[in-house]
Amino acid sequence: MITALTGGTGGAKFLQGLQEVASPGDLTAIVNTGDDLRWWGLHVSPDLDSVTYALAGMLSRDRGWGIEADTFQCLDLMRRLGAPSWFQLGDRDLATHLYRTELLTQGKSLAEATEQIARRLGVGACILPMTNDRVETRVLTTAGELSFQEYFVRERYQVPVQAVRFDRAAQASPAPGVVESILAARTILIAPSNPVTSIGPILAVPGVREALQNTRAPVVAVTPIIAGAAVSGPAAALMQANGLPVSIEGVARAYADFLDTLIVDECDTAYAANVERLGIRTRCAQILMTSTADKSSLASAVLQAADELRAVSASA
Amino acid sequence: MITALTGGTGGAKFLQGLQEVASPGDLTAIVNTGDDLRWWGLHVSPDLDSVTYALAGMLSRDRGWGIEADTFQCLDLMRRLGAPSWFQLGDRDLATHLYRTELLTQGKSLAEATEQIARRLGVGACILPMTNDRVETRVLTTAGELSFQEYFVRERYQVPVQAVRFDRAAQASPAPGVVESILAARTILIAPSNPVTSIGPILAVPGVREALQNTRAPVVAVTPIIAGAAVSGPAAALMQANGLPVSIEGVARAYADFLDTLIVDECDTAYAANVERLGIRTRCAQILMTSTADKSSLASAVLQAADELRAVSASA
Repeated sequence: MITALTGGTGGAKFLQGLQEVASPGDLTAIVNTGDDLRWWGLHVSPDLDSVTYALAGMLSRDRGWGIEADTFQCLDLMRRLGAPSWFQLGDRDLATHLYRTELLTQGKSLAEATEQIARRLGVGACILPMTNDRVETRVLTTAGELSFQEYFVRERYQVPVQAVRFDRAAQASPAPGVVESILAARTILIAPSNPVTSIGPILAVPGVREALQNTRAPVVAVTPIIAGAAVSGPAAALMQANGLPVSIEGVARAYADFLDTLIVDECDTAYAANVERLGIRTRCAQILMTSTADKSSLASAVLQAADELRAVSASA
Repeated sequence: MITALTGGTGGAKFLQGLQEVASPGDLTAIVNTGDDLRWWGLHVSPDLDSVTYALAGMLSRDRGWGIEADTFQCLDLMRRLGAPSWFQLGDRDLATHLYRTELLTQGKSLAEATEQIARRLGVGACILPMTNDRVETRVLTTAGELSFQEYFVRERYQVPVQAVRFDRAAQASPAPGVVESILAARTILIAPSNPVTSIGPILAVPGVREALQNTRAPVVAVTPIIAGAAVSGPAAALMQANGLPVSIEGVARAYADFLDTLIVDECDTAYAANVERLGIRTRCAQILMTSTADKSSLASAVLQAADELRAVSASA
């Protein structure tokens, strides 16, 4: 059993690779919901959707979010009606949000809604929201405090960040199965997602960090930082705001209390010693995933690193 | 000032004709909301939408409902998710329901939401829901009591009808402007809509029938029944269930307490005496509207009948 903590974009691609090399039934994804928002009256869970669409083979390759070949007819009329339109929902994508919102209104939990949507779309893996509670990532910027999507999509992460906080995290509980799947897993993986606003909210839910520290499974992370820059998105600015160097060392520090091995890109081997100094092993792989083969080979490299850790632990 | 009471399909076409021959700014439509439903968590007002789309030049000509050339991508994924799909919402149409639902959630009234949507879509006429309250048309059938859309769309009006009632009508108030526009109008028109479930709910709102009885304006109705059959939809079965003959006489009886003139089709002139016996004048016109010219000429005939009534009244 493999349990992976993940955000949307990079994490979704990583999970596609894992699904190729491992049995989907053995895979549990614990997904960030700190980016969730109410949009047009609907409950939108961007990272849950990206992961679900990725594992259902529906994720748009061009955009990296939403559904492949989706149309935007509804958005077009919404604009004409004068509704806010900076966050874009495709017509097919809308069905997921309408359906989820209905299930939540009927009293189902976010985890139950997520499970039902994933099953209906043919996903074999188990997709868990980090919590059924509302935890909101808030980004304090020079332009005021913004929700994550306001910062990321509306402002295109061009406003300087001063701090990040996870509103109501202290009162949240992990969704059923989150802690259990960490404690029972054979392998724990941290996807190449933003450590601050993708993995950070998951770690902020009380009990998750402790489970990662206490699990007997090896914990392997894939860095989203290559050669001192983020593969995509605002990870660099957010790491800086959180006092982390924008480097593989910064990623390792974010996870230092539970991480066993960090997978780094070939071009960063010269800096591996900065990570190993923290008591964390490094292994090299090609992190950038452009083809299906890239995704599978990264997934294989990560699982191999976990096997190595188990072998070391068995011989110790 | 012209005030027209109307349902969706036939009424929407009739209003398009009126808008051609009268100034849109002089036109007020009082629209049935007894068919409104909650669908996919959204507040859907089928008749308000048909009238709005018709007056905005957006109504689908083929379907007679929804938006011209709309797509159904969202519906398609809704089906795959296992959501109910017998009531079909197009992708552009969805924007109207999302936007209306948001306005209602923010505390706006249905009338305010309707006005805002109509204005944004470029409608010059005033479109009023019959009430801001929830009045629901319930159709008692041999298969149990159904909402109007369950009877009309899901069952395709193939189940025998025993009775019709308007749930919560007694507690409803006319929307602001409804009674006022009837009392202040120069001409009152009743569109060629189903007298039982399109005009009936409007008349069931306390105060509306009284205003029609008390207004000094001539009241002219267009029959939706031609040669003993409905032009479209379930009007015949519903009139029978309400004890009304399926004929121009049945239409006249439904409005007998306030109607001055009934516009009947040329083919029904032989039965005009049955209407005139009720103290209601008849005038002949071509009721079936297939072209834009048909709509305009019916509208002209109706306005001319109103002019005649005013002339009679002035000379009396």
